Amino acid sequence: MNAVAEPETPVRGARPTTFETLPTVASDVTTRARLGRLLTPHGTVETPQFMPVGTNATVKALDPDDLREAGATMILANTYHLALRPGHERIARLGGLHRFMAWDRGILTDSGGYQVVSLGDRLTIDDDGVTFRSHLDGSPQRFTPEYSIAVQEALGADVAVCFDQPVPPHASSRASVAEATERTHRWAERCLVAHSRPDQALFGIIQGGLEADWRAASTDFLRALPFDGLCIGGLAGDETAAQRRAALDIVVQRLVDDPRPRYLMGLGSPLDLLDAVDAGVDVFDSVLPARVARNGTLWVPGGRLNLRNARFLDDPSPVLEGCPCRLCRTFSRAYLAHLFRANELLAYRLATCHNLTFTLDFMARIRSALAAGTFPRLRRELQAHAASTDAAGEPA
Amino acid sequence: MNAVAEPETPVRGARPTTFETLPTVASDVTTRARLGRLLTPHGTVETPQFMPVGTNATVKALDPDDLREAGATMILANTYHLALRPGHERIARLGGLHRFMAWDRGILTDSGGYQVVSLGDRLTIDDDGVTFRSHLDGSPQRFTPEYSIAVQEALGADVAVCFDQPVPPHASSRASVAEATERTHRWAERCLVAHSRPDQALFGIIQGGLEADWRAASTDFLRALPFDGLCIGGLAGDETAAQRRAALDIVVQRLVDDPRPRYLMGLGSPLDLLDAVDAGVDVFDSVLPARVARNGTLWVPGGRLNLRNARFLDDPSPVLEGCPCRLCRTFSRAYLAHLFRANELLAYRLATCHNLTFTLDFMARIRSALAAGTFPRLRRELQAHAASTDAAGEPA
Repeated sequence: MNAVAEPETPVRGARPTTFETLPTVASDVTTRARLGRLLTPHGTVETPQFMPVGTNATVKALDPDDLREAGATMILANTYHLALRPGHERIARLGGLHRFMAWDRGILTDSGGYQVVSLGDRLTIDDDGVTFRSHLDGSPQRFTPEYSIAVQEALGADVAVCFDQPVPPHASSRASVAEATERTHRWAERCLVAHSRPDQALFGIIQGGLEADWRAASTDFLRALPFDGLCIGGLAGDETAAQRRAALDIVVQRLVDDPRPRYLMGLGSPLDLLDAVDAGVDVFDSVLPARVARNGTLWVPGGRLNLRNARFLDDPSPVLEGCPCRLCRTFSRAYLAHLFRANELLAYRLATCHNLTFTLDFMARIRSALAAGTFPRLRRELQAHAASTDAAGEPA
Repeated sequence: MNAVAEPETPVRGARPTTFETLPTVASDVTTRARLGRLLTPHGTVETPQFMPVGTNATVKALDPDDLREAGATMILANTYHLALRPGHERIARLGGLHRFMAWDRGILTDSGGYQVVSLGDRLTIDDDGVTFRSHLDGSPQRFTPEYSIAVQEALGADVAVCFDQPVPPHASSRASVAEATERTHRWAERCLVAHSRPDQALFGIIQGGLEADWRAASTDFLRALPFDGLCIGGLAGDETAAQRRAALDIVVQRLVDDPRPRYLMGLGSPLDLLDAVDAGVDVFDSVLPARVARNGTLWVPGGRLNLRNARFLDDPSPVLEGCPCRLCRTFSRAYLAHLFRANELLAYRLATCHNLTFTLDFMARIRSALAAGTFPRLRRELQAHAASTDAAGEPA
């Protein structure tokens, strides 16, 4: 079933979470998009795939039934947040993260690297690790590669991720990118040594910012290590779409015969996902669909609806005709608009159900097109449709 | 099937919502508790019954599936809130309240009388109605009996309720009780005249505060009018349990042969419900179970658990073993305690599911005991159990 070349990289022996690429109809050689399947101890994840984010061991406002109904097969949980509260050792005593949150499908934990840098106060980074103050209570904290791995092994997700030092892609100097990337490489080697849980896969993280040579060097460095998958970090930040695509092309070109899954961290808007799939990425995560949903922004083909707009208060139609989500199959735009105005808790759940269903359906549509050999056409159509929407992003 | 005497009061002809009392095993003549059935255009409501409160056309944090799963067969929605936002005419244009909130079981709307007095700013009451400022935007508003009925007919609940003037039961002078009660009587007659929607029942409201003669007079006055049911208002406030029971006994003694449902407004704690059922009340509503749930207080037999207490962070057991609710059948106390500490939205939904399931199961247990003739014994057992709990209300 595997249509790509044999791995040229070292492997660490049999892993419970494995990846296989699937044959697709030969179509357009201009795309690197690929169809695959991540086999985890908690079920199969068809790729390209999007992982909703469950920061505090809950995808905000949803329960596991909602997530299953939306089509989620794997979610991301945040190591930084869970280590601080309720504590990874507590979760381990309670049977691990799957049991704690009653989610029996796939889980990936990030390493905490991004949150330490973005949320921690009074940050000092040295070669051994990062010292900071908790954003919750100001308590002193220290994350090292070894500690991040220990936390992730305690949480027990299907996939753990190396502790890295991301930098803002566009705003960072070449020197700071170089320093963070080299440190990330040293930490990757330490994470490999530290990681021992046999039922958990470990992904490395490629950094390199927007510096072409550092992106290439980081890809080559990580590729040579026996990780089960490769994350592409330090993007989905302040860079332009063109800058991101250029960085992705450098990475994927150097991984083109590598059979391991490629996971671009933090990307979530449909057109961005489409472009990154085209560039050859298999897995994504982002808080974006859920966060904008809680603000009243509902995604529809080619645009979005702001349910806080007064015009929806009298609109009896569903947010999206034919959408199978809990919101659209039952309630009107008028009702959702009312719930948002009244600050009713149900608004957040219904809107989140919709945007995650929309995003996961969008990925399923991409997979169908890949299987049928029509992905390049789908991409052209969706980009043209998006270009016809107005500046506010509302559908034309 | 009707075990009580023929009605001695005028009737307004066939109504879509009717009430019948059911035969029970003769047991203990010391209780006035009775078993009944409210037949509405949206299904049958077994009594004694508790109605969760959906103030803004949503029972906070729950969707209709959650409500059905908790066992709700009828809910209350607030006329005052819905008239101000999103507006009753808008809801009528959207197909009425049932369709708006996608709830296909029973709905009762209150009259707005209580909210006008408790939430409205710069209140002036005259014999025609009440002028006040909206608590939402300060806009000038006026409620009259005719306006309350018009709003409720636009909302289209199965049961509407007369516009009344409640007063705090304990804190009110005899003169203010007298004035408010007589006004409530005049308004009841105007509501009867104003009400015309043939598919909607209309309940009158008995007032009278804690003044025995006024309670009796109000009962006699309302009883003589052709309402489909009788609300008992002006209780479940600042009175003691003994004061409430005394007022209830006055009311029910004068209604003992009246076949119409008796609805005590605003009562929600299990032991209070038990006592009021014993006094002969059929229907209740309260925000209490849902409100305390959102604060982290979970009801269990004989007491409550405060899930914000640190001792629950390591507790792998469910909140209540054997409870069929969404919370207890899936999640641990530890997980819920974590969600509350992290201010996660899922906490509010899960806790509300539990407390409403608990309350509705409690009413079902009361009905079973009534059917079996064991209600007096159940009441003694539950009161003894409650007396054995500690002062903080935690189970002994």
